[in-house]
Amino acid sequence: MSNNGRLAVPDKRAVTDHDIIDVLAERWSPRAFADRPVEPEKLRQLFEAARWAASSYNEQPWRYLVATKDDPEAYDRLLNCLGTFNQQWAQTAPVLMLGFYKTTFSRNGKPNRCAPHDLGAASAQLTAQATALDLYVHQMAGIEMDTIRDTYDVPDDFEPMAALAVGYLGDPDVLPEKLAKREQAERTRRPLDETVFGDDWGEAAPLAR
Amino acid sequence: MSNNGRLAVPDKRAVTDHDIIDVLAERWSPRAFADRPVEPEKLRQLFEAARWAASSYNEQPWRYLVATKDDPEAYDRLLNCLGTFNQQWAQTAPVLMLGFYKTTFSRNGKPNRCAPHDLGAASAQLTAQATALDLYVHQMAGIEMDTIRDTYDVPDDFEPMAALAVGYLGDPDVLPEKLAKREQAERTRRPLDETVFGDDWGEAAPLAR
Repeated sequence: MSNNGRLAVPDKRAVTDHDIIDVLAERWSPRAFADRPVEPEKLRQLFEAARWAASSYNEQPWRYLVATKDDPEAYDRLLNCLGTFNQQWAQTAPVLMLGFYKTTFSRNGKPNRCAPHDLGAASAQLTAQATALDLYVHQMAGIEMDTIRDTYDVPDDFEPMAALAVGYLGDPDVLPEKLAKREQAERTRRPLDETVFGDDWGEAAPLAR
Repeated sequence: MSNNGRLAVPDKRAVTDHDIIDVLAERWSPRAFADRPVEPEKLRQLFEAARWAASSYNEQPWRYLVATKDDPEAYDRLLNCLGTFNQQWAQTAPVLMLGFYKTTFSRNGKPNRCAPHDLGAASAQLTAQATALDLYVHQMAGIEMDTIRDTYDVPDDFEPMAALAVGYLGDPDVLPEKLAKREQAERTRRPLDETVFGDDWGEAAPLAR
Protein backbone atom coordinates (compact mmCIF):
# COMPACT_ATOMS: atom_id res chain seq x y z
CA MET A 1 0.00 0.00 0.00
CA SER A 2 1.45 3.34 -1.05
CA ASN A 3 0.43 6.81 0.07
CA ASN A 4 1.59 6.35 3.71
CA GLY A 5 -0.75 3.45 4.29
CA ARG A 6 -3.76 5.37 2.99
CA LEU A 7 -5.91 3.96 0.24
CA ALA A 8 -5.42 5.71 -3.08
CA VAL A 9 -8.31 7.43 -4.79
CA PRO A 10 -9.16 4.69 -7.26
CA ASP A 11 -9.03 4.84 -11.05
CA LYS A 12 -12.30 3.19 -11.98
CA ARG A 13 -12.64 4.09 -15.65
CA ALA A 14 -14.46 1.24 -17.39
CA VAL A 15 -12.20 -1.15 -19.30
CA THR A 16 -14.39 -1.39 -22.38
CA ASP A 17 -14.32 -3.79 -25.32
CA HIS A 18 -15.50 -0.98 -27.64
CA ASP A 19 -14.95 2.78 -27.37
CA ILE A 20 -17.59 4.72 -25.49
CA ILE A 21 -17.80 8.39 -24.61
CA ASP A 22 -15.96 9.66 -21.51
CA VAL A 23 -19.07 10.67 -19.58
CA LEU A 24 -20.14 7.01 -19.65
CA ALA A 25 -16.73 5.33 -19.28
CA GLU A 26 -15.74 7.47 -16.30
CA ARG A 27 -19.01 7.04 -14.42
CA TRP A 28 -18.94 4.83 -11.37
CA SER A 29 -20.71 4.76 -8.02
CA PRO A 30 -18.40 5.80 -5.18
CA ARG A 31 -19.26 5.60 -1.49
CA ALA A 32 -16.71 8.23 -0.39
CA PHE A 33 -17.56 11.81 -1.26
CA ALA A 34 -15.47 14.92 -0.63
CA ASP A 35 -16.49 17.33 2.12
CA ARG A 36 -17.19 20.04 -0.44
CA PRO A 37 -20.57 21.50 -1.38
CA VAL A 38 -21.89 21.23 -4.93
CA GLU A 39 -22.55 24.55 -6.61
CA PRO A 40 -26.34 25.16 -6.99
CA GLU A 41 -25.93 25.99 -10.70
CA LYS A 42 -24.30 22.58 -11.24
CA LEU A 43 -27.24 20.90 -9.51
CA ARG A 44 -29.56 22.77 -11.84
CA GLN A 45 -27.54 21.44 -14.79
CA LEU A 46 -27.98 17.91 -13.44
CA PHE A 47 -31.76 18.28 -13.22
CA GLU A 48 -31.86 20.00 -16.61
CA ALA A 49 -30.13 16.96 -18.10
CA ALA A 50 -32.77 14.71 -16.52
CA ARG A 51 -35.48 17.04 -17.79
CA TRP A 52 -34.63 16.39 -21.44
CA ALA A 53 -34.81 12.59 -21.26
CA ALA A 54 -37.18 10.74 -23.56
CA SER A 55 -40.43 9.40 -22.10
CA SER A 56 -43.51 7.56 -23.23
CA TYR A 57 -45.99 10.17 -24.59
CA ASN A 58 -43.60 12.80 -23.20
CA GLU A 59 -45.21 12.19 -19.80
CA GLN A 60 -41.94 12.99 -17.98
CA PRO A 61 -43.05 10.75 -15.08
CA TRP A 62 -39.96 11.60 -13.00
CA ARG A 63 -39.92 13.76 -9.86
CA TYR A 64 -37.01 14.39 -7.51
CA LEU A 65 -36.67 15.47 -3.91
CA VAL A 66 -33.31 17.05 -3.11
CA ALA A 67 -31.56 18.06 0.11
CA THR A 68 -28.10 19.51 0.68
CA LYS A 69 -25.96 19.82 3.81
CA ASP A 70 -26.55 23.59 3.67
CA ASP A 71 -29.88 22.79 5.30
CA PRO A 72 -28.92 20.17 7.92
CA GLU A 73 -32.49 19.53 9.06
CA ALA A 74 -33.75 18.83 5.52
CA TYR A 75 -30.65 16.75 4.82
CA ASP A 76 -31.13 14.58 7.92
CA ARG A 77 -34.77 14.05 7.07
CA LEU A 78 -33.79 12.71 3.65
CA LEU A 79 -30.84 10.69 4.99
CA ASN A 80 -33.28 9.00 7.38
CA CYS A 81 -35.21 7.68 4.36
CA LEU A 82 -32.26 5.48 3.32
CA GLY A 83 -31.63 1.97 4.59
CA THR A 84 -29.25 1.83 7.56
CA PHE A 85 -26.42 0.32 5.51
CA ASN A 86 -26.64 3.11 2.95
CA GLN A 87 -26.82 5.79 5.66
CA GLN A 88 -23.32 4.77 6.81
CA TRP A 89 -21.63 6.00 3.66
CA ALA A 90 -24.23 8.24 1.99
CA GLN A 91 -23.79 10.78 4.79
CA THR A 92 -20.42 11.64 3.23
CA ALA A 93 -22.32 13.07 0.22
CA PRO A 94 -23.14 16.80 0.30
CA VAL A 95 -26.30 16.22 -1.73
CA LEU A 96 -28.97 13.53 -1.43
CA MET A 97 -31.92 13.00 -3.75
CA LEU A 98 -34.90 10.69 -4.03
CA GLY A 99 -36.28 9.70 -7.42
CA PHE A 100 -40.00 9.01 -7.92
CA TYR A 101 -42.18 8.05 -10.87
CA LYS A 102 -45.82 8.78 -11.54
CA THR A 103 -47.65 5.49 -12.00
CA THR A 104 -50.38 6.88 -14.28
CA PHE A 105 -50.56 9.09 -17.36
CA SER A 106 -51.63 12.66 -16.58
CA ARG A 107 -53.59 12.86 -19.84
CA ASN A 108 -55.97 9.95 -19.13
CA GLY A 109 -55.23 8.42 -15.71
CA LYS A 110 -54.29 5.05 -17.23
CA PRO A 111 -51.32 3.06 -15.85
CA ASN A 112 -47.97 4.06 -17.34
CA ARG A 113 -46.05 0.81 -17.72
CA CYS A 114 -42.94 2.69 -18.83
CA ALA A 115 -42.76 5.15 -15.93
CA PRO A 116 -39.99 3.41 -13.91
CA HIS A 117 -38.04 2.89 -17.14
CA ASP A 118 -38.32 6.57 -18.01
CA LEU A 119 -37.19 7.65 -14.52
CA GLY A 120 -34.17 5.39 -15.06
CA ALA A 121 -33.43 7.22 -18.31
CA ALA A 122 -33.75 10.62 -16.62
CA SER A 123 -31.45 9.62 -13.77
CA ALA A 124 -28.91 8.21 -16.25
CA GLN A 125 -28.89 11.55 -18.06
CA LEU A 126 -28.52 13.35 -14.72
CA THR A 127 -25.54 11.09 -14.00
CA ALA A 128 -23.89 11.63 -17.40
CA GLN A 129 -24.17 15.39 -16.85
CA ALA A 130 -22.70 14.96 -13.37
CA THR A 131 -19.72 13.07 -14.78
CA ALA A 132 -19.10 15.89 -17.25
CA LEU A 133 -18.92 18.27 -14.27
CA ASP A 134 -16.51 16.01 -12.30
CA LEU A 135 -19.36 15.02 -10.01
CA TYR A 136 -20.26 11.48 -9.04
CA VAL A 137 -23.63 9.85 -8.42
CA HIS A 138 -24.31 6.69 -6.45
CA GLN A 139 -27.84 5.39 -6.78
CA MET A 140 -29.41 3.20 -4.11
CA ALA A 141 -32.30 0.78 -4.16
CA GLY A 142 -32.08 0.41 -0.37
CA ILE A 143 -34.62 3.00 0.75
CA GLU A 144 -37.41 3.00 3.34
CA MET A 145 -40.68 3.26 1.42
CA ASP A 146 -42.93 3.86 4.43
CA THR A 147 -40.62 6.47 5.93
CA ILE A 148 -40.50 8.27 2.60
CA ARG A 149 -44.28 8.30 2.22
CA ASP A 150 -44.78 9.48 5.80
CA THR A 151 -42.03 12.10 5.72
CA TYR A 152 -43.03 13.74 2.46
CA ASP A 153 -46.73 12.90 2.19
CA VAL A 154 -46.16 11.38 -1.27
CA PRO A 155 -49.37 11.16 -3.36
CA ASP A 156 -50.69 7.65 -4.05
CA ASP A 157 -49.95 7.86 -7.75
CA PHE A 158 -46.24 8.40 -7.19
CA GLU A 159 -43.81 5.64 -6.30
CA PRO A 160 -40.35 6.09 -4.72
CA MET A 161 -37.74 4.22 -6.75
CA ALA A 162 -34.17 5.07 -5.73
CA ALA A 163 -32.03 7.46 -3.75
CA LEU A 164 -29.08 9.28 -5.27
CA ALA A 165 -25.97 10.47 -3.43
CA VAL A 166 -24.19 13.24 -5.34
CA GLY A 167 -20.90 15.04 -4.83
CA TYR A 168 -17.23 15.32 -5.66
CA LEU A 169 -15.07 12.24 -5.26
CA GLY A 170 -13.68 11.77 -1.76
CA ASP A 171 -10.90 9.90 -0.03
CA PRO A 172 -11.87 6.27 0.71
CA ASP A 173 -10.31 6.70 4.17
CA VAL A 174 -13.41 8.59 5.32
CA LEU A 175 -15.28 5.28 5.13
CA PRO A 176 -15.31 2.31 7.53
CA GLU A 177 -12.45 -0.02 6.48
CA LYS A 178 -14.64 -2.66 4.84
CA LEU A 179 -16.39 -0.08 2.66
CA ALA A 180 -13.13 1.73 1.91
CA LYS A 181 -11.70 -1.45 0.40
CA ARG A 182 -14.77 -1.86 -1.80
CA GLU A 183 -13.93 1.44 -3.49
CA GLN A 184 -10.94 -0.32 -5.07
CA ALA A 185 -12.90 -3.28 -6.45
CA GLU A 186 -12.67 -4.05 -10.13
CA ARG A 187 -15.72 -3.10 -12.20
CA THR A 188 -17.27 -6.02 -14.02
CA ARG A 189 -19.99 -6.46 -16.61
CA ARG A 190 -21.51 -9.40 -18.49
CA PRO A 191 -20.10 -9.64 -22.04
CA LEU A 192 -22.21 -8.41 -24.95
CA ASP A 193 -22.73 -11.89 -26.38
CA GLU A 194 -24.85 -12.74 -23.32
CA THR A 195 -26.87 -9.53 -23.56
CA VAL A 196 -27.47 -8.78 -27.23
CA PHE A 197 -29.49 -11.43 -29.05
CA GLY A 198 -30.32 -11.83 -32.72
CA ASP A 199 -32.95 -14.08 -34.18
CA ASP A 200 -33.30 -16.32 -31.14
CA TRP A 201 -33.54 -15.52 -27.46
CA GLY A 202 -30.26 -16.33 -25.72
CA GLU A 203 -28.25 -16.58 -28.97
CA ALA A 204 -25.77 -13.76 -29.53
CA ALA A 205 -26.59 -11.48 -32.46
CA PRO A 206 -24.01 -11.78 -35.27
CA LEU A 207 -22.68 -8.31 -34.45
CA ALA A 208 -22.17 -9.26 -30.79
CA ARG A 209 -20.25 -12.49 -31.39
CA MET B 1 -41.81 26.53 -47.21
CA SER B 2 -38.29 26.60 -48.61
CA ASN B 3 -36.31 23.76 -50.16
CA ASN B 4 -38.62 23.39 -53.25
CA GLY B 5 -41.63 22.59 -51.11
CA ARG B 6 -39.83 19.87 -49.21
CA LEU B 7 -39.70 19.90 -45.43
CA ALA B 8 -36.32 20.87 -44.04
CA VAL B 9 -34.40 18.47 -41.83
CA PRO B 10 -35.33 19.98 -38.48
CA ASP B 11 -33.01 21.54 -35.90
CA LYS B 12 -34.31 20.01 -32.71
CA ARG B 13 -31.55 20.80 -30.25
CA ALA B 14 -33.12 21.28 -26.82
CA VAL B 15 -33.60 24.91 -25.79
CA THR B 16 -32.37 24.49 -22.24
CA ASP B 17 -32.61 26.77 -19.21
CA HIS B 18 -29.19 25.51 -18.01
CA ASP B 19 -26.23 24.21 -20.02
CA ILE B 20 -26.16 20.47 -20.62
CA ILE B 21 -23.73 18.34 -22.60
CA ASP B 22 -24.20 18.04 -26.36
CA VAL B 23 -24.99 14.30 -26.37
CA LEU B 24 -28.05 15.09 -24.25
CA ALA B 25 -29.08 18.42 -25.79
CA GLU B 26 -28.92 17.08 -29.35
CA ARG B 27 -30.85 13.90 -28.63
CA TRP B 28 -34.36 13.70 -30.00
CA SER B 29 -36.61 10.96 -31.35
CA PRO B 30 -37.05 11.23 -35.12
CA ARG B 31 -39.45 9.13 -37.20
CA ALA B 32 -37.58 9.60 -40.48
CA PHE B 33 -34.32 7.70 -40.81
CA ALA B 34 -31.85 7.77 -43.70
CA ASP B 35 -31.66 4.79 -46.06
CA ARG B 36 -28.12 4.06 -44.89
CA PRO B 37 -26.93 1.08 -42.86
CA VAL B 38 -25.31 1.54 -39.46
CA GLU B 39 -21.76 0.24 -39.19
CA PRO B 40 -21.65 -2.92 -37.00
CA GLU B 41 -18.80 -1.47 -34.91
CA LYS B 42 -20.96 1.55 -34.10
CA LEU B 43 -23.76 -0.76 -32.98
CA ARG B 44 -21.27 -2.53 -30.73
CA GLN B 45 -20.36 0.84 -29.25
CA LEU B 46 -24.04 1.50 -28.55
CA PHE B 47 -24.45 -1.78 -26.70
CA GLU B 48 -21.13 -1.27 -24.90
CA ALA B 49 -22.47 2.06 -23.60
CA ALA B 50 -25.59 0.30 -22.32
CA ARG B 51 -23.40 -2.40 -20.79
CA TRP B 52 -21.71 0.00 -18.38
CA ALA B 53 -24.90 1.45 -16.91
CA ALA B 54 -25.43 1.28 -13.16
CA SER B 55 -27.85 -1.31 -11.83
CA SER B 56 -29.15 -2.55 -8.52
CA TYR B 57 -26.66 -5.14 -7.16
CA ASN B 58 -24.96 -4.93 -10.57
CA GLU B 59 -27.66 -7.31 -11.83
CA GLN B 60 -27.56 -5.76 -15.33
CA PRO B 61 -31.18 -6.82 -15.89
CA TRP B 62 -31.23 -5.54 -19.48
CA ARG B 63 -31.27 -7.72 -22.60
CA TYR B 64 -31.68 -6.60 -26.21
CA LEU B 65 -32.82 -8.22 -29.41
CA VAL B 66 -31.48 -6.54 -32.55
CA ALA B 67 -32.24 -6.86 -36.26
CA THR B 68 -30.86 -4.93 -39.23
CA LYS B 69 -32.08 -4.60 -42.80
CA ASP B 70 -29.04 -6.66 -43.88
CA ASP B 71 -31.15 -9.64 -42.83
CA PRO B 72 -34.61 -8.76 -44.20
CA GLU B 73 -36.33 -11.80 -42.73
CA ALA B 74 -35.05 -11.11 -39.20
CA TYR B 75 -35.85 -7.42 -39.62
CA ASP B 76 -39.43 -8.10 -40.70
CA ARG B 77 -39.94 -10.45 -37.78
CA LEU B 78 -38.91 -7.72 -35.36
CA LEU B 79 -40.85 -5.00 -37.22
CA ASN B 80 -43.96 -7.17 -36.87
CA CYS B 81 -43.60 -6.93 -33.06
CA LEU B 82 -44.32 -3.19 -33.14
CA GLY B 83 -47.76 -1.66 -33.01
CA THR B 84 -49.21 -0.85 -36.43
CA PHE B 85 -48.82 2.91 -36.00
CA ASN B 86 -45.15 2.53 -35.15
CA GLN B 87 -44.56 0.12 -38.04
CA GLN B 88 -45.50 2.93 -40.47
CA TRP B 89 -42.45 5.01 -39.67
CA ALA B 90 -40.09 2.60 -37.88
CA GLN B 91 -39.60 0.73 -41.15
CA THR B 92 -37.48 3.68 -42.31
CA ALA B 93 -34.90 2.72 -39.65
CA PRO B 94 -32.06 0.39 -40.71
CA VAL B 95 -31.85 -1.08 -37.21
CA LEU B 96 -34.59 -2.16 -34.82
CA MET B 97 -34.15 -3.39 -31.27
CA LEU B 98 -36.31 -4.65 -28.45
CA GLY B 99 -35.37 -3.99 -24.82
CA PHE B 100 -36.22 -6.47 -22.06
CA TYR B 101 -35.65 -6.62 -18.32
CA LYS B 102 -35.24 -9.62 -16.06
CA THR B 103 -37.91 -9.45 -13.36
CA THR B 104 -35.91 -11.36 -10.71
CA PHE B 105 -32.39 -11.23 -9.29
CA SER B 106 -30.13 -13.95 -10.65
CA ARG B 107 -28.38 -14.34 -7.28
CA ASN B 108 -31.52 -15.26 -5.26
CA GLY B 109 -34.59 -15.36 -7.51
CA LYS B 110 -36.31 -12.53 -5.63
CA PRO B 111 -38.22 -9.80 -7.52
CA ASN B 112 -36.05 -6.95 -8.77
CA ARG B 113 -38.14 -3.82 -8.29
CA CYS B 114 -35.50 -1.70 -10.04
CA ALA B 115 -35.17 -3.80 -13.20
CA PRO B 116 -37.30 -1.60 -15.54
CA HIS B 117 -35.57 1.49 -14.12
CA ASP B 118 -32.15 -0.01 -14.82
CA LEU B 119 -33.11 -0.97 -18.38
CA GLY B 120 -34.14 2.66 -18.83
CA ALA B 121 -30.69 3.76 -17.67
CA ALA B 122 -28.97 1.33 -20.05
CA SER B 123 -31.05 2.49 -23.01
CA ALA B 124 -30.39 6.14 -22.12
CA GLN B 125 -26.64 5.42 -22.17
CA LEU B 126 -27.06 3.60 -25.50
CA THR B 127 -28.83 6.69 -26.81
CA ALA B 128 -26.19 9.13 -25.55
CA GLN B 129 -23.52 7.06 -27.28
CA ALA B 130 -25.63 7.02 -30.45
CA THR B 131 -25.90 10.81 -30.38
CA ALA B 132 -22.10 11.07 -30.10
CA LEU B 133 -21.87 8.97 -33.30
CA ASP B 134 -24.46 11.10 -35.18
CA LEU B 135 -27.00 8.33 -34.79
CA TYR B 136 -30.56 8.78 -33.56
CA VAL B 137 -32.73 6.55 -31.41
CA HIS B 138 -36.52 6.59 -31.18
CA GLN B 139 -37.91 4.45 -28.38
CA MET B 140 -41.46 3.09 -28.54
CA ALA B 141 -43.81 1.84 -25.86
CA GLY B 142 -46.25 0.67 -28.56
CA ILE B 143 -45.19 -2.96 -28.94
CA GLU B 144 -47.11 -6.24 -29.20
CA MET B 145 -46.32 -8.23 -26.06
CA ASP B 146 -47.90 -11.51 -27.17
CA THR B 147 -46.29 -11.38 -30.62
CA ILE B 148 -42.91 -10.74 -29.01
CA ARG B 149 -43.27 -13.67 -26.59
CA ASP B 150 -44.44 -16.00 -29.35
CA THR B 151 -41.85 -14.90 -31.90
CA TYR B 152 -38.83 -15.11 -29.64
CA ASP B 153 -39.92 -17.62 -27.00
CA VAL B 154 -39.09 -15.13 -24.24
CA PRO B 155 -38.55 -16.79 -20.82
CA ASP B 156 -41.19 -16.04 -18.17
CA ASP B 157 -38.78 -14.05 -16.02
CA PHE B 158 -38.10 -11.52 -18.77
CA GLU B 159 -40.46 -8.71 -19.69
CA PRO B 160 -40.45 -6.75 -22.97
CA MET B 161 -40.40 -3.02 -22.28
CA ALA B 162 -39.74 -0.93 -25.39
CA ALA B 163 -38.63 -1.05 -29.00
CA LEU B 164 -35.82 1.14 -30.32
CA ALA B 165 -35.46 2.39 -33.89
CA VAL B 166 -31.85 3.36 -34.65
CA GLY B 167 -30.19 5.02 -37.63
CA TYR B 168 -28.92 8.19 -39.26
CA LEU B 169 -31.31 11.12 -39.56
CA GLY B 170 -33.48 11.04 -42.66
CA ASP B 171 -35.54 13.40 -44.75
CA PRO B 172 -39.04 13.91 -43.27
CA ASP B 173 -40.42 13.59 -46.82
CA VAL B 174 -40.05 9.81 -46.62
CA LEU B 175 -42.89 9.85 -44.08
CA PRO B 176 -46.65 10.16 -44.60
CA GLU B 177 -47.49 13.90 -44.57
CA LYS B 178 -49.02 13.96 -41.10
CA LEU B 179 -45.97 12.30 -39.55
CA ALA B 180 -43.57 14.42 -41.60
CA LYS B 181 -45.05 17.58 -40.07
CA ARG B 182 -44.60 16.18 -36.58
CA GLU B 183 -40.85 16.07 -37.15
CA GLN B 184 -40.89 19.89 -37.04
CA ALA B 185 -42.78 20.15 -33.75
CA GLU B 186 -41.26 22.14 -30.93
CA ARG B 187 -39.80 20.11 -28.10
CA THR B 188 -41.34 20.87 -24.73
CA ARG B 189 -40.62 19.90 -21.14
CA ARG B 190 -42.14 20.70 -17.75
CA PRO B 191 -40.08 23.37 -15.91
CA LEU B 192 -37.75 22.29 -13.11
CA ASP B 193 -39.81 23.98 -10.39
CA GLU B 194 -42.58 21.43 -11.05
CA THR B 195 -40.16 18.47 -10.99
CA VAL B 196 -37.55 19.13 -8.31
CA PHE B 197 -38.95 19.41 -4.81
CA GLY B 198 -37.30 20.38 -1.53
CA ASP B 199 -38.70 19.84 1.91
CA ASP B 200 -42.29 19.32 0.83
CA TRP B 201 -43.80 17.30 -1.98
CA GLY B 202 -44.92 19.59 -4.80
CA GLU B 203 -42.96 22.61 -3.51
CA ALA B 204 -39.99 23.61 -5.65
CA ALA B 205 -36.59 23.13 -4.00
CA PRO B 206 -34.83 26.46 -3.34
CA LEU B 207 -32.30 25.68 -6.08
CA ALA B 208 -35.09 25.02 -8.62
CA ARG B 209 -37.01 28.24 -8.01
